[in-house]
Amino acid sequence: MTHDAQQLAEESLTRRVLASFAGTPDDRLREVMQSLVTHLHAFIRDVRLTEAEWQAGIDFLTGCGHITDDRRQEFILLSDVLGASMQTITVANPVDGRITESTVFGPFFVEDSPRIPLGGDIAGGAPGQPCWVQGRVTDVAGNPVPGARVEVWEADEDGFYDVQYGDERVAGRAHLFTDDDGRYRFWGLTPTPYPIPHDGPVGRMLAAVNRSPVRAAHLHFMVTAPGLRTLVTHIFVEGDPQLAAGDSVFGVKDSLISAFDVQPAGTPTPDGRDLGGRDWARAEFDIVLAPADA
Amino acid sequence: MTHDAQQLAEESLTRRVLASFAGTPDDRLREVMQSLVTHLHAFIRDVRLTEAEWQAGIDFLTGCGHITDDRRQEFILLSDVLGASMQTITVANPVDGRITESTVFGPFFVEDSPRIPLGGDIAGGAPGQPCWVQGRVTDVAGNPVPGARVEVWEADEDGFYDVQYGDERVAGRAHLFTDDDGRYRFWGLTPTPYPIPHDGPVGRMLAAVNRSPVRAAHLHFMVTAPGLRTLVTHIFVEGDPQLAAGDSVFGVKDSLISAFDVQPAGTPTPDGRDLGGRDWARAEFDIVLAPADA
Repeated sequence: MTHDAQQLAEESLTRRVLASFAGTPDDRLREVMQSLVTHLHAFIRDVRLTEAEWQAGIDFLTGCGHITDDRRQEFILLSDVLGASMQTITVANPVDGRITESTVFGPFFVEDSPRIPLGGDIAGGAPGQPCWVQGRVTDVAGNPVPGARVEVWEADEDGFYDVQYGDERVAGRAHLFTDDDGRYRFWGLTPTPYPIPHDGPVGRMLAAVNRSPVRAAHLHFMVTAPGLRTLVTHIFVEGDPQLAAGDSVFGVKDSLISAFDVQPAGTPTPDGRDLGGRDWARAEFDIVLAPADA
Repeated sequence: MTHDAQQLAEESLTRRVLASFAGTPDDRLREVMQSLVTHLHAFIRDVRLTEAEWQAGIDFLTGCGHITDDRRQEFILLSDVLGASMQTITVANPVDGRITESTVFGPFFVEDSPRIPLGGDIAGGAPGQPCWVQGRVTDVAGNPVPGARVEVWEADEDGFYDVQYGDERVAGRAHLFTDDDGRYRFWGLTPTPYPIPHDGPVGRMLAAVNRSPVRAAHLHFMVTAPGLRTLVTHIFVEGDPQLAAGDSVFGVKDSLISAFDVQPAGTPTPDGRDLGGRDWARAEFDIVLAPADA
């Protein structure tokens, strides 16, 4: 019939679906579900989604579900490559020039990482260039935060996190606590670029849209302290060519790019550690935490 | 910082994500992905999605993936209860008063159903009130469509499709072909309301928003014929109280509601079949197919 009749049919359907959520007891859940329905229907109408495309979407989500297990999280990868993870973080952590910026959590964090002392080594046998990382955790007034829990995790030089090997190894991850002056220091590995897992549905989607799965080199941080907002972030490596090429999960922020200064073999190490004639790098990353209620 | 700085951060992230799809070779895939990103980011920004809510969403999708197998399709259920399936059908099948309206396909269709002759029985032992269904398939000019393939499938009186029993039974489904005058007729079961599977994540979501999982009683049709557009639809049962209460997947259209006239035990059947003293029902449903290129 007419264009108007078609538009009316589409709009009245959306209204019926929205109305079905009207009895949701929890106000916030109702708000989220009704907004989700509004945007989902608008997407379908805007692109004039075909039934074959809808079926492809169902098959895609099914594939994501079936590859996901305790070690592989395809839905987080999907959220990451669509920028949904980063948008959530951007919304949840309002811009404030005084505090250290957040970025994506990623799918490779593991609870109960090993505790190391200040100056300890997180590598756990993972291959890569040794890298001394140090910094200071403060609040927005510049006061040191003693006893802050600093979780760090990263891929090895082959681009894999420990959990991706499918054995029980624990490597490239640890936690430590800041000293009385808010300072932390540890041995890690100089981060290298690596692809997100791309042998599944998300990888096939990236290939179809001609996008690289490679992430800019980074080292993950999660810093928690009583009374302060938990910070989830990375430090990125100044000069990494992947910074210009684009990070596959949109996690880069300029303020998070740090110099990783390579030291020739034989250069004395900060803690006197003997690296057996290898070169090494050093980086410094100070962290400012927001108040918990900010 | 300022509200403007925050808005800029959110918008510039969305722009970067959209730009990452610019090199998609297929124009349609690029259009779909960029629209998806636009609406997904707008949803996150509109509701100010929290990181905990994002995690709940990841967990929800993971749960849907893990319950989905060859017999259970939670992502289709999800699409159905959000009205996304029905909106896709509405968009893909423009309003045209001359042709029979479409509705949701649902997750219970099975390829290679048994072929029955005209007047045959689709029940295959499924319990329920016998129901004689007949009608005529025509094109928009009123010409009969001989040899149209009519697929029909339905739940039994306990509310379950054959595939939900987890054994190998085939029941409540069949296909047949129209005669030279475009007519079809078969014995089925009088449809009864039943809940969609609600023991999984979608069922828990419906409970949280205080929605019923019950579908209005219906019998599925899929009609295919060369040169004509395939029709996927249901017939609903006039007088079913669930029509007023609301169909859980928004599939009802007024034009698809048919009288199912109950016949007292002993009433002669159209084909002389002896029903052993049971009552039965009869329904008539004429079908008009659109041209394939409409």
